[in-house]
Amino acid sequence: MTRRIHVIGIGAGDPDYVTAQAVTALNDTRVFFAMDKGEAKDDLVALRRLICARFIREPGYRFHEMPDPPRNRVAADSPAYRRAVADWHDARARLWAKAIASELGPDDAGAFLAWGDPSLYDSTLRILDRVAEHVDIDYDVIPGITAIQALTARHRIPLNDVGEPVLITTGRQLRGNGLTGSAVVMLDADCSFEGCPPETRIWWGAYLGTPDELLFSGTVAEVGARIVAARADARARHGWIMDTYLLRSAD
Amino acid sequence: MTRRIHVIGIGAGDPDYVTAQAVTALNDTRVFFAMDKGEAKDDLVALRRLICARFIREPGYRFHEMPDPPRNRVAADSPAYRRAVADWHDARARLWAKAIASELGPDDAGAFLAWGDPSLYDSTLRILDRVAEHVDIDYDVIPGITAIQALTARHRIPLNDVGEPVLITTGRQLRGNGLTGSAVVMLDADCSFEGCPPETRIWWGAYLGTPDELLFSGTVAEVGARIVAARADARARHGWIMDTYLLRSAD
Ligand SMILES: C[S@@+](CC[C@H](N)C(=O)[O-])C[C@H]1O[C@@H](n2cnc3c(N)ncnc32)[C@H](O)[C@@H]1O
Ligand SMILES: C[S@@+](CC[C@H](N)C(=O)[O-])C[C@H]1O[C@@H](n2cnc3c(N)ncnc32)[C@H](O)[C@@H]1O
Repeated sequence: MTRRIHVIGIGAGDPDYVTAQAVTALNDTRVFFAMDKGEAKDDLVALRRLICARFIREPGYRFHEMPDPPRNRVAADSPAYRRAVADWHDARARLWAKAIASELGPDDAGAFLAWGDPSLYDSTLRILDRVAEHVDIDYDVIPGITAIQALTARHRIPLNDVGEPVLITTGRQLRGNGLTGSAVVMLDADCSFEGCPPETRIWWGAYLGTPDELLFSGTVAEVGARIVAARADARARHGWIMDTYLLRSAD
Repeated sequence: MTRRIHVIGIGAGDPDYVTAQAVTALNDTRVFFAMDKGEAKDDLVALRRLICARFIREPGYRFHEMPDPPRNRVAADSPAYRRAVADWHDARARLWAKAIASELGPDDAGAFLAWGDPSLYDSTLRILDRVAEHVDIDYDVIPGITAIQALTARHRIPLNDVGEPVLITTGRQLRGNGLTGSAVVMLDADCSFEGCPPETRIWWGAYLGTPDELLFSGTVAEVGARIVAARADARARHGWIMDTYLLRSAD
């Protein structure tokens, strides 16, 4: 028996980022598998439920929460990091396989909702690859609007200079490698743009596409300190923050 | 009098990539401004009309085609290239400003439909920036599913390795700079992956999200020649091709 699974990108903030293709997949789904992150991310869980409530026409679906296996926290620049990530993916895969086998009937489809797009800094596809070693599944992937698209749309700017490349990277990588040309930085808890030359241009956004959205743009010299302060303040108020930014070196 | 304009990302292939936010903007639009490209891209024009017909509930809208000003063709690596692009954007901006002023009533909204996402290798936003010098406009940007998301979704793969960066680049840049790590290549008429080491992994897609979709993956040694042949064949049959690919160096 092969179980059908949708991996659905739900967009990175605004429920209206959901595509027609995602709506079809949402309506085809009986069981939504979700990680119980036990974190202060209640807002994000609420948004998922809101999306289902808003776009699903017949309420025959349910959520199945799975506990998240404990993660062996290792510094991202340590040699043990890849191993720790792989172990954690394996532990999740076993858990997901068990849940899929027990929760999904022969004609039911299950789904995983991925924030933004499932391909961008998200582990769902990597884990599902391993789930397939334990249980027979057939999955498709539905693209979603990423935080990058949300950022450029809200600032109304092109991502790239004419004919030029753009790097998608992380805060840690930016700190290690510096900036050349244009780069979008994600997963940065440390305002790593502060290490860039002061004339670097930055377009920054947090909680993009939500009512709490924050936007700043200018050079790092002009707006860097203001971003740091606004970020700390918002993070304290909400208990969490998601922010991303585009950098262009001045030369 | 300020005219309202939507720049609407319609996704890069499948009409079902259209988002709920785009549907709202489509329904708010009276006049769709379009370039008459005079090229063999009839299929793409048809897709735009199909999207409007499918998602707009009341048929009170119309298309306004504008001739495309002649472009001074200059090699992309010549020093005159930026100048030629800027001149051409200026010529378009004057044309667009005139059309907006004459075609849009005071309460009407106009729209430009951008293939994929408006921020990615697309000139609409750059031109609109200049339109604002000629006529009073207020525009918003609605993000869309890019060819990059379409590519990774159809191959069901992550874009990035865990915690690693990804470069978005062009065929010309790849030929000039070579590959390090992961890169998505767009705007490549020359199968520039052929210059990469044979053990480089490639995930290639053409006409993504459409019924004519083509997908190949493997190492450049395994599938490179097959892609070149399939690409030439499809291009000859359709009269045009749009393809993109993700590369990961073997190390
Ligand atoms: C684990 S990654 C997931 C990215 C997601 N798959 C996507 O397509 O955008 C989370 C990072 O995405 C960025 N991000 C996601 N949603 C965001 C939002 N609404 N506003 C700002 N940044 C966001 C932040 O950089 C955050 O650290
Ligand atoms: C001028 S750029 C526009 C990109 C678009 N704004 C986007 O967000 O995908 C056109 C390039 O996008 C890629 N592309 C767009 N649609 C595609 C599709 N359906 N299949 C494959 N490649 C596509 C090709 O590399 C093509 O040369």
